[in-house]
Amino acid sequence: MRITVAEQPCGEFPDAWRYAVGTGRFDLALRRDYQDSLALVQREIGFRHIRGHGLLSDQVGVHRPYEYRGRRHVRHAFGYVDQVVDAYLELGVRPFVELGFMPSGLASGDQTVFWWQGNVTPPRSHTEWAALVRAVVGHLVDRYGLAEVRGWPIEVWNEPDLTDFWAGADADAYHRLYEVTAHAVKEVDAGLQVGGPALSPGADDDWLPRFAGYVTDRSVPIDFVSRHAYTSGPAQHVPFGVHQTLAPADRLLAQFAAPRRQLAGTPLADLPVHITEFNSSYRPDNPIHDTALHAAYLAPVLVGGGDLVDSFAYWTFSDVFEEQGVPTTPLHGGFGLLTHRQLRKPTFHLYAFLSRLGDRVLARGPDHLVTRDDTGRISVLAWAPVDVTDADPVDRHTVRLSLPVPGARTAFLLRRSVSEEDGNLRRAWCELGRPAAPTPRQLDLLREATEPARRHASLPVRGGRVDLDLHLSRHEVTLAEVSPVTDETPPWADDRRLLGLTS
Amino acid sequence: MRITVAEQPCGEFPDAWRYAVGTGRFDLALRRDYQDSLALVQREIGFRHIRGHGLLSDQVGVHRPYEYRGRRHVRHAFGYVDQVVDAYLELGVRPFVELGFMPSGLASGDQTVFWWQGNVTPPRSHTEWAALVRAVVGHLVDRYGLAEVRGWPIEVWNEPDLTDFWAGADADAYHRLYEVTAHAVKEVDAGLQVGGPALSPGADDDWLPRFAGYVTDRSVPIDFVSRHAYTSGPAQHVPFGVHQTLAPADRLLAQFAAPRRQLAGTPLADLPVHITEFNSSYRPDNPIHDTALHAAYLAPVLVGGGDLVDSFAYWTFSDVFEEQGVPTTPLHGGFGLLTHRQLRKPTFHLYAFLSRLGDRVLARGPDHLVTRDDTGRISVLAWAPVDVTDADPVDRHTVRLSLPVPGARTAFLLRRSVSEEDGNLRRAWCELGRPAAPTPRQLDLLREATEPARRHASLPVRGGRVDLDLHLSRHEVTLAEVSPVTDETPPWADDRRLLGLTS
Amino acid sequence: MRITVAEQPCGEFPDAWRYAVGTGRFDLALRRDYQDSLALVQREIGFRHIRGHGLLSDQVGVHRPYEYRGRRHVRHAFGYVDQVVDAYLELGVRPFVELGFMPSGLASGDQTVFWWQGNVTPPRSHTEWAALVRAVVGHLVDRYGLAEVRGWPIEVWNEPDLTDFWAGADADAYHRLYEVTAHAVKEVDAGLQVGGPALSPGADDDWLPRFAGYVTDRSVPIDFVSRHAYTSGPAQHVPFGVHQTLAPADRLLAQFAAPRRQLAGTPLADLPVHITEFNSSYRPDNPIHDTALHAAYLAPVLVGGGDLVDSFAYWTFSDVFEEQGVPTTPLHGGFGLLTHRQLRKPTFHLYAFLSRLGDRVLARGPDHLVTRDDTGRISVLAWAPVDVTDADPVDRHTVRLSLPVPGARTAFLLRRSVSEEDGNLRRAWCELGRPAAPTPRQLDLLREATEPARRHASLPVRGGRVDLDLHLSRHEVTLAEVSPVTDETPPWADDRRLLGLTS
Amino acid sequence: MRITVAEQPCGEFPDAWRYAVGTGRFDLALRRDYQDSLALVQREIGFRHIRGHGLLSDQVGVHRPYEYRGRRHVRHAFGYVDQVVDAYLELGVRPFVELGFMPSGLASGDQTVFWWQGNVTPPRSHTEWAALVRAVVGHLVDRYGLAEVRGWPIEVWNEPDLTDFWAGADADAYHRLYEVTAHAVKEVDAGLQVGGPALSPGADDDWLPRFAGYVTDRSVPIDFVSRHAYTSGPAQHVPFGVHQTLAPADRLLAQFAAPRRQLAGTPLADLPVHITEFNSSYRPDNPIHDTALHAAYLAPVLVGGGDLVDSFAYWTFSDVFEEQGVPTTPLHGGFGLLTHRQLRKPTFHLYAFLSRLGDRVLARGPDHLVTRDDTGRISVLAWAPVDVTDADPVDRHTVRLSLPVPGARTAFLLRRSVSEEDGNLRRAWCELGRPAAPTPRQLDLLREATEPARRHASLPVRGGRVDLDLHLSRHEVTLAEVSPVTDETPPWADDRRLLGLTS
Repeated sequence: MRITVAEQPCGEFPDAWRYAVGTGRFDLALRRDYQDSLALVQREIGFRHIRGHGLLSDQVGVHRPYEYRGRRHVRHAFGYVDQVVDAYLELGVRPFVELGFMPSGLASGDQTVFWWQGNVTPPRSHTEWAALVRAVVGHLVDRYGLAEVRGWPIEVWNEPDLTDFWAGADADAYHRLYEVTAHAVKEVDAGLQVGGPALSPGADDDWLPRFAGYVTDRSVPIDFVSRHAYTSGPAQHVPFGVHQTLAPADRLLAQFAAPRRQLAGTPLADLPVHITEFNSSYRPDNPIHDTALHAAYLAPVLVGGGDLVDSFAYWTFSDVFEEQGVPTTPLHGGFGLLTHRQLRKPTFHLYAFLSRLGDRVLARGPDHLVTRDDTGRISVLAWAPVDVTDADPVDRHTVRLSLPVPGARTAFLLRRSVSEEDGNLRRAWCELGRPAAPTPRQLDLLREATEPARRHASLPVRGGRVDLDLHLSRHEVTLAEVSPVTDETPPWADDRRLLGLTS
Repeated sequence: MRITVAEQPCGEFPDAWRYAVGTGRFDLALRRDYQDSLALVQREIGFRHIRGHGLLSDQVGVHRPYEYRGRRHVRHAFGYVDQVVDAYLELGVRPFVELGFMPSGLASGDQTVFWWQGNVTPPRSHTEWAALVRAVVGHLVDRYGLAEVRGWPIEVWNEPDLTDFWAGADADAYHRLYEVTAHAVKEVDAGLQVGGPALSPGADDDWLPRFAGYVTDRSVPIDFVSRHAYTSGPAQHVPFGVHQTLAPADRLLAQFAAPRRQLAGTPLADLPVHITEFNSSYRPDNPIHDTALHAAYLAPVLVGGGDLVDSFAYWTFSDVFEEQGVPTTPLHGGFGLLTHRQLRKPTFHLYAFLSRLGDRVLARGPDHLVTRDDTGRISVLAWAPVDVTDADPVDRHTVRLSLPVPGARTAFLLRRSVSEEDGNLRRAWCELGRPAAPTPRQLDLLREATEPARRHASLPVRGGRVDLDLHLSRHEVTLAEVSPVTDETPPWADDRRLLGLTS
Repeated sequence: MRITVAEQPCGEFPDAWRYAVGTGRFDLALRRDYQDSLALVQREIGFRHIRGHGLLSDQVGVHRPYEYRGRRHVRHAFGYVDQVVDAYLELGVRPFVELGFMPSGLASGDQTVFWWQGNVTPPRSHTEWAALVRAVVGHLVDRYGLAEVRGWPIEVWNEPDLTDFWAGADADAYHRLYEVTAHAVKEVDAGLQVGGPALSPGADDDWLPRFAGYVTDRSVPIDFVSRHAYTSGPAQHVPFGVHQTLAPADRLLAQFAAPRRQLAGTPLADLPVHITEFNSSYRPDNPIHDTALHAAYLAPVLVGGGDLVDSFAYWTFSDVFEEQGVPTTPLHGGFGLLTHRQLRKPTFHLYAFLSRLGDRVLARGPDHLVTRDDTGRISVLAWAPVDVTDADPVDRHTVRLSLPVPGARTAFLLRRSVSEEDGNLRRAWCELGRPAAPTPRQLDLLREATEPARRHASLPVRGGRVDLDLHLSRHEVTLAEVSPVTDETPPWADDRRLLGLTS
Repeated sequence: MRITVAEQPCGEFPDAWRYAVGTGRFDLALRRDYQDSLALVQREIGFRHIRGHGLLSDQVGVHRPYEYRGRRHVRHAFGYVDQVVDAYLELGVRPFVELGFMPSGLASGDQTVFWWQGNVTPPRSHTEWAALVRAVVGHLVDRYGLAEVRGWPIEVWNEPDLTDFWAGADADAYHRLYEVTAHAVKEVDAGLQVGGPALSPGADDDWLPRFAGYVTDRSVPIDFVSRHAYTSGPAQHVPFGVHQTLAPADRLLAQFAAPRRQLAGTPLADLPVHITEFNSSYRPDNPIHDTALHAAYLAPVLVGGGDLVDSFAYWTFSDVFEEQGVPTTPLHGGFGLLTHRQLRKPTFHLYAFLSRLGDRVLARGPDHLVTRDDTGRISVLAWAPVDVTDADPVDRHTVRLSLPVPGARTAFLLRRSVSEEDGNLRRAWCELGRPAAPTPRQLDLLREATEPARRHASLPVRGGRVDLDLHLSRHEVTLAEVSPVTDETPPWADDRRLLGLTS
């Protein structure tokens, strides 16, 4: 069955997929490997915002109590903050500010999360916390300008519904923290955007309505609502890694949709919703992240997520991460689109393919999306279905399209693919013997061997249409660009004469 | 029939193919496009020397007569010379100096060659010419050091056997020019290398012996002998281009071999021989240069040339050239390995493949070369045969090898190919409608679409050997790198667990 | 006498000085040295448009007649045009298009101008010329977009009042050329800006009114009026150079003012006026261009020119020029703000100083300009008077100002100067023995030695004001930036304790 | 009194000053700011080796115990090690390996040092420690080659004589650690260089002889001896900083000399001695490091140190350091030659001046060093005396020299200076109000304002000599380069004609 794609667009393709991306802790952005990776991501994908933990943690050095003449004072220091945010802006990406975790000098307890020990206890003093928030946000406004910072969402804390991230998962304590923080932000400028509560996928269904009730009852400012989405089952441990089952990809879309469903009928119903983290597994050591399957699994999520929310941020752009410590191998199941040293995983290519789509949708289906841009170029993203039970794996899948190419006699096709065979970094690395410390030559081999496959062709246009048959192999994701051709071949051109044999 | 490749090398692979490359006229090296191209060529291929015409022509501004107090003087100016040679050395390539053409202020006539009007007449004054030569060579020694410049061959003039390049093709006049020049060079330093006569392929067989006789009889210094090689027939003109027949590639090797044959028994018999120009067609507007056929045609020449001569310089590394004026399309049959703006032609890839070969030869045949380097990596260059009569074109060709990979259980294969289908710039450009002024987006498409095809695989090693079957398509040239694998897979690795389904 | 500078601005500082800059012939822009120089100029000065000769000359290869099947055709080729304009736009500068000179295949005669032989004869066919203009302008619109190209002024020919630039200085022939060209431009798009007549300073006073009459009578489109300005006397020749007397700098301003004066009362009276070339001497080999005097001489012109015209383009940004051939020394009296290889001349620094001025004028005088920007920073440009008769040279000159710095207790002063002593490339080069081919080490010495002098200080603010005494040495031009200071010194800071001696 | 400098060198200027430089902890080298700083240091100074703490600390992730099938195993992981060492080698600097501190998984206690908590307890198992050492050194040899790594000194631990750095300052425990480590290194390759004991300046005089006795008695391999040198008194605390008294600079030289004195007569007497850390104050928050005084104070140490030891490593090249946490201001008294973001301190300029000296010494005195290189260029480093008691500060100081410049009629002088007035970053920063978070514009101002002062002049040569009077201001350090001039001025050059007034 060939799908006849209409010539007129049926809508815009929303760019919620590129609105934000996740990152490892704030101070990792000081690293060169991180910045090299981010530069590559921005050049080939181009996210608008970046969000991660740890802005207020001790490593960044913002909150600095000291004694002078017998009294306690606090200095707020921004040397590292400025280095990171300057770098972000140079690289064309803006902060999605997450306010957390707790500076040890302000913490009420010593519970920490992660290898890098982020303190997850409430502030000892809400007054000092509010001063800290005003200082940070005020400094950003001073340095980058109010117009700029008004465009940066400011999120209060991370997953307060989990005991790992917020001592005791104390909802009341979070409500108070949110209230103090939101007011502190608005004291700097009423036009800044503040929101929360950055819930985990495991939050009870009534968490959000209760939060909505609190902020509504007390007229606490709120500009957006946020939560997270993951689809993996419990961790089965092996040394330096885990395996987990995965729910089907549409479970991610269901999680995206949850906040609007839960807030329907409340005063918060029409706020923007940001999925400030999503991925398949929530573990930074699950090799599923590195696979070709992963790109095919996420393709329909990236295509469909924009219907449901204002943004959904892939957690995370790079394997420079360290929540579970320093990795022991280059491919270790990290969240990154890129490994350390910028090797591209299949999911990186998926995002890069998305970034080349046009902004108008011509057609959409369970295995494809057809777009056009204002130059007339048609871009087709197609993917092979994924079976997370592995019961009935799909080794061959075909998408047949009839594309409108009015006014040309031929079209130029450039097709790029990643699959089990092509553009599959993990496979090449396994073939190389899984080197834990690849030599420069091995890194070069991996880089070159895992470029996407590319094919080009001249397609005949008949009746203003081109037939495009996309045969997909196992876990393939493909981008087919079809451009109408203006023929400038001169009348004397005759390739049969190349060898001088006919005249 | 599978060829069993021995484990022990049968010799070194000489790098005469990379000793030198040709270039358009000297002052074109001032251009950014030229330097960008040369940088790319050096990064991916890495030639040692570069040779072109026009160092002494008016565009470079070296020879500068002037009047002062009623008398004629000459100033020698080196601003552009320094810019060019500084750039060469920064890019890791050294001059192969060609002394020519004639500055108009020193010329005895006004005959010129090329669109850019190089004067090809003898000097009005041998004294002033000798002073010019001493000034140029002396300046190079002052600026770059004697040790450095002693490594730069200095060639006297270009193709004096052709009336186009030397007024009247006057051999006696050339002999005198050579004599004066060689002495002038040696006056600067006896350790500098001077040579000639840079004969065209059409020179009579006795031209070189007569030249040898002259320099021998008069004890004229000579450190090397040079000539050129081309294999094309007469030009059949179309607008902005020509077509020509080609002789089989081994005709090039026969031309390489000619100087040693012609000088056998003379005192010059043991001098180094440099083929200071070679190509298929001698025309800068023959589209054969842009084809996939061209790479396959030259492959055996590049592999075999080093047996016959000390160097053979592909004419030329870039389409930035202008002997017939400014091109009207990006693919116009120029000599370049690269077009303007650094699009790679198939012959570029051939050279890039050669640059990745090891330095020891394990096996060689009419369609392949097998090398090894000191890391144990085996590199196979293979090519499909070319029929220049097009009577019996080869669409499929197979090379079967058994390669020695001692001490490993698997090997990693990375194979790169160019052919009619893959890495074929001209084909993609034709499919795009042959745009005369490609847009930036078209340039990007061409760049991406014409990367070589790449495949990787894990090959089993049995009995210390790997079987490698290289199936070649029409005009394919392929590089297969086979690296022994050290397996670091940990005992707990089990890819069946990726989806968390078995535990 | 101290000048009390008001706190409130008296106007905007127009940026006519940066609207355009001149350049050597079009194809020189293909050179790396040229592009490196332009990149530096754009980084430190930032011009908006660039204008030079030769777009249509043979070197650029646009107009390409050929025979096919017995008939003459013309192809228009844009490979070099695209390379140049792409580079301009990448470097942040836009073309100020000059249509000229005549392609040899379209020329009615063989008269040429300059070492590079620009043909200055009328077209053999106005029809073919009009087709050429439409092709060029149409191509620019296709490639760069209509909105972009509508912002590029298009000027018809260069100095048609001089026999050197227009055969016979035939005004009627120019009128016809202008008419044909203007219509051809408007056929591409009526919103494009076309103008002329690019008169030399020597044009008779009635040249422009007669031109105005012609275009008015025949309703020829015209969007702007252009002329040139130079102030040097006749050339006194020495080898490779000239000396000339200079008129006082206000003669340049008088020339700027001429078009409006001459057109007063005509329908062209209110058109924009562009001085598409200006300099002191019109010779590219007059060392006055390289001197410190030159910067001081031009300072009042750059400050005052914007009152009179919409732009005035310094001729030229770089010594990469070649109208008189290849220079024989790095400092040779070229027009450039920069020499080959990017050595900065004093006039470069003058422009760089201007580029750091604020956009609001606080005060202006015969030897100074005081501006402020929106951060409160005050910038003072001051210069020592120049006596072009050298009868009464000024070795010391002082500008005393009282500047408003409300709301601060101190101000930070950064002062940069060029003068006979400081930032004077030519002086350092002479001290080095005037090397014709400087070594890399000499180039480094020149670069380092000729940085502007810089001094910084803390200035006390009293009564909201700072006293600034600028003592200027011979030919000094200085930029003093005064920034209000926010004092963050902590109470415990005590520099007397640095050596640990007091506690 | 003018000093007549001899024409013939009296010796070589040893480059012990550039053999090594100190750095903050190993993993800080992953940062971009760090690498940008190191790139600048290498470009303008060029150290050969770099040494810092923390290679084996948890942040680098090398020692990785894990459980598998019920047993404890250890994996050694080198991802970060490779990133850092790769970066070092790219930047042209090699490791001076320090083996320490203790991985927590191998530590016998939990005592830590520094904000970043380096564990300073002995290994729980010498066997596992030896395996770790062999793994690390063996990996370096595998990746970088034996020839390369044999050139990297390997030092065992840091300041074991201090309880802060080695639990209990237990000398016996250090002796055992040294023994195990030295043997482990030599098991990898006998040609590797191992040494210690990296003593602090406060170590008892018999510490080293006892260590020498131990290694001699037990035939423990040792290739070099190391210690540290500092001259500051006790810390007087202020918030975020300290002040300390300083001993005169020759106390540093006395400390350099100590190891040879203490080892005289022992079998270790002739080993190379490396001062693997030195500075004035040992505190990373003493503003003395940022001053102009500091450069003048260290000048005689850098000039004289090479007489006494094989190397002395300035502690440290950059303020990216963090032993006391994250700095709160850009100038905070850090050890760095550079601040964060590459602002140059006066001591940076001192090192940059040294790097421009010639390799032959012509003269040396208490306030100067005169050198020559093989081009004939004479470089004079001179400095104003420093009084650390501040009792009798020197505001003016003059060095008068007569320099040999045979064979020229003039010489070109380029003089660069830093002093209280010039090139004094801290002064400019104080004048700017000591901003804690400088804006980009303030960073630019600081960069530009604190360039060294530069002056150039033509000096007459009389009798083959040039008189050079160097007047030094308070805390000035100056580099005067005197180059013989080859005069190429043409006979027609006459600067009186620049204005065209005389002919």
